[in-house]
Amino acid sequence: MKCALDLLQPLLDGRPRALARAISWMENGHPEARELMALLWPHMGKAVVVGLTGAPGAGKSTLTDQLARVLRSEGKKVGILAVDPTSPFSGGAILGDRIRMNHISDDPGIFIRSMATRGALGGLARATQDAIDLLDAAGFDVVLVETVGVGQDEVDVVSCVQTCIVVLIPGMGDDIQAIKAGIMEVADIFVINKADRDGVEKVEREIEGMKSLAAIRSWDPPALRTVAALGEGIGEVLAKIREHGIWLREHGGLQKKAKERAKLRFNSLLAEEASRRAKAKAGQERVENLIAAIADRRLDPYAAVAEVMREKNSF
Amino acid sequence: MKCALDLLQPLLDGRPRALARAISWMENGHPEARELMALLWPHMGKAVVVGLTGAPGAGKSTLTDQLARVLRSEGKKVGILAVDPTSPFSGGAILGDRIRMNHISDDPGIFIRSMATRGALGGLARATQDAIDLLDAAGFDVVLVETVGVGQDEVDVVSCVQTCIVVLIPGMGDDIQAIKAGIMEVADIFVINKADRDGVEKVEREIEGMKSLAAIRSWDPPALRTVAALGEGIGEVLAKIREHGIWLREHGGLQKKAKERAKLRFNSLLAEEASRRAKAKAGQERVENLIAAIADRRLDPYAAVAEVMREKNSF
Repeated sequence: MKCALDLLQPLLDGRPRALARAISWMENGHPEARELMALLWPHMGKAVVVGLTGAPGAGKSTLTDQLARVLRSEGKKVGILAVDPTSPFSGGAILGDRIRMNHISDDPGIFIRSMATRGALGGLARATQDAIDLLDAAGFDVVLVETVGVGQDEVDVVSCVQTCIVVLIPGMGDDIQAIKAGIMEVADIFVINKADRDGVEKVEREIEGMKSLAAIRSWDPPALRTVAALGEGIGEVLAKIREHGIWLREHGGLQKKAKERAKLRFNSLLAEEASRRAKAKAGQERVENLIAAIADRRLDPYAAVAEVMREKNSF
Repeated sequence: MKCALDLLQPLLDGRPRALARAISWMENGHPEARELMALLWPHMGKAVVVGLTGAPGAGKSTLTDQLARVLRSEGKKVGILAVDPTSPFSGGAILGDRIRMNHISDDPGIFIRSMATRGALGGLARATQDAIDLLDAAGFDVVLVETVGVGQDEVDVVSCVQTCIVVLIPGMGDDIQAIKAGIMEVADIFVINKADRDGVEKVEREIEGMKSLAAIRSWDPPALRTVAALGEGIGEVLAKIREHGIWLREHGGLQKKAKERAKLRFNSLLAEEASRRAKAKAGQERVENLIAAIADRRLDPYAAVAEVMREKNSF
């Protein structure tokens, strides 16, 4: 078995295979995962992390790919994490049926990974945070985190990156309003993609209306138009990301984001670890019996959990 | 302060205010929540629980409302839970900007609740499960659980209900394919809503293609067409839900679903409770110091969690 020290130098050198393995370690809770994170920790904190969220079909992947393409042309190393809890696949090799980045998939300056492990509760958000840190330590200048889902975990992930982009498109239904209202507070930049379609002014008006209801922030999130499939408007998005980065530095925003991210990391890792230990102490058979008792309605779930927690106190 | 016993009879009588309060208790981790669940537990297990998921803009709310309308016309009591992690609002009174069910909002045979509490990790999925149980105990014949988000938590919620409906619409982009692939295994019924639009045959072909890749199940999930806004196709969806219920009973599927749901409930409640206790033992100040240390990069998150867990062992 490889140990954490064996992976350290290849990771710091940005070797793709080492990265892929390290991310898998984090996903699967490998025994050396904690040690590896401790070794890499001093080497982090340099990458610019950008999150992209929004409704399915909004073209987040295409936008992500285009941003990566422009960044690569500037010589930047780019990591892409596609967070997709609904995908049955995880890993760097299988990216589902997505047609992406054929022109740069052999480029060592780019690393693409689909994050889809449906493990323990909170595991996906936590593993994504770990992967961001690994890419950071491996010398990637920019990490683009794209979420396919738009649930709680996904919003949590993108809300504590440096710059959060919310991608909208013209002509969506009612539900999209709810999404916009909820992520208003975390959006740093709105991108109206597929802006060559009808209804782009309507979306702009809706964003303005929403902003007038939201708490006043000293950073006013702009709404940019793109046609990602044609590469239109990408430079403007990148310029805004940089402008936002400068603004954050000048207004103490980086520390605030780091604090939020630290809180999320701590909470999700604690939930995972605390329940893992509680289960380990109770033993698998006992846990399975309790679950069976809940299913048969002999025991309610609160009572079952209380039993496991009592078990623990006897140690 | 009200105690669990005070709420018992009003809840069993299906009183809306008692229900609203009890759901809030579960959301907020009220000290009497556990006792209330224990008291109600023997009164559950009768409700038919139907989940609706799918991309934003697919018309899930409209479909939910139409199903409720038809069920009400048959004299059934219907509970609706709208799971919306992106909404800043929670509770029965505020349903965001949704225009729904004006014609039956005063009907005591219907109970609508928006579930949006962004509390502890896993809290939303857990609170939704609690709310399903409360509606069940309160004598609601059918509980419709509609998810606005399509993330991990939401998929988890709808995947362990009796019948899981995946709502699609013609003309969505590439991301929708990823969603379909991922929830293929949990879909019991596909509904192609807005079926008066172009591209409905394309969606049908895609569903068929997906099914040919998926593991063969003895229940073959059908694809039904609806135009929910016009009330078209609703009866067929309801008939399929019933057919699926009969099939489940005949094939031992109800026990299997109950088992999955019990497992989800146990795991999410355990994660919540175990991390709550670990934090309580460490003390708020210590937890805040650890989070600050992670944010400042003095400590990695794995080490921070290990410290809190060690703390606990000293008790």
